Amino acid sequence: MSSPLLYLEDLVVGQRFLSGTYRVEAAEIKEFAAKYDPQPFHLDEEAALDSFFGGLAASGWLTASITMRLLVDGGLPIAGGLIGAGGEISWTRPTRPGDVLQVETEVLELASMPTRPTSGLVTVRSRVRNQEKKIVQIFTAKLVVPRQVQNSISKPV
Amino acid sequence: MSSPLLYLEDLVVGQRFLSGTYRVEAAEIKEFAAKYDPQPFHLDEEAALDSFFGGLAASGWLTASITMRLLVDGGLPIAGGLIGAGGEISWTRPTRPGDVLQVETEVLELASMPTRPTSGLVTVRSRVRNQEKKIVQIFTAKLVVPRQVQNSISKPV
Repeated sequence: MSSPLLYLEDLVVGQRFLSGTYRVEAAEIKEFAAKYDPQPFHLDEEAALDSFFGGLAASGWLTASITMRLLVDGGLPIAGGLIGAGGEISWTRPTRPGDVLQVETEVLELASMPTRPTSGLVTVRSRVRNQEKKIVQIFTAKLVVPRQVQNSISKPV
Repeated sequence: MSSPLLYLEDLVVGQRFLSGTYRVEAAEIKEFAAKYDPQPFHLDEEAALDSFFGGLAASGWLTASITMRLLVDGGLPIAGGLIGAGGEISWTRPTRPGDVLQVETEVLELASMPTRPTSGLVTVRSRVRNQEKKIVQIFTAKLVVPRQVQNSISKPV
């Protein structure tokens, strides 16, 4: 992506960013599950039919990982990279084979970081939607974002 | 693992579970990053030296995924599988190449699920430690856990 990278000074509350899209295939759902979440409803269509999900569903951690990929690939163009301290995640519906995911991110809050004066802490909410525009995941995260002007201690926050 | 699988009725607040261990190699850190979190500090030792992390660090989503694997492999033996509605995650320090991770989970809260009377909602906190017993991740999650006795509507909660 050719978006310019944004520093703390470039961000304002309410600002929104839209990612590209990512199509989730059954093969990727099963491959990820075999490595990190080997439960029947993530591994096998037949076994998934009788489960809580009623059909093959992606591990929530795969949905989260794909979300990260979309954000890194231009969905949230932050200078210095996307460095998260953590956040709150919820999976509102399953990600299914063939789903095409897209992430919309909104800046919720900007704060100073007393322990790291060259950066700020930015709270963002990323909503992940499928091709029917239904939300599959919401992640509200705190990101460490560098200031552009780091050489002046007199610059106001 | 040979632990018996636990139903809602088997769980009590304060109960703890300890997982097996998982050694995180540099190759896995880079492979995961190439797919889902392609940022220099997760991909390349040299590039990582000058970064926020000061050296190669695992994507937080890899740490979360490995945590899930440890829980599924007996670290949290819940009947019906580990089905999370979401939760709060924090990465307290980086996961590094060679780290050996282990998850300790504590039951924090048990609640009914009005929309799903055959299950309950169980809040658990999973702390992930490295080989120095330092915490790298804390995940507080809400899990959907089935009741063992599902055929009596008069059974008390």
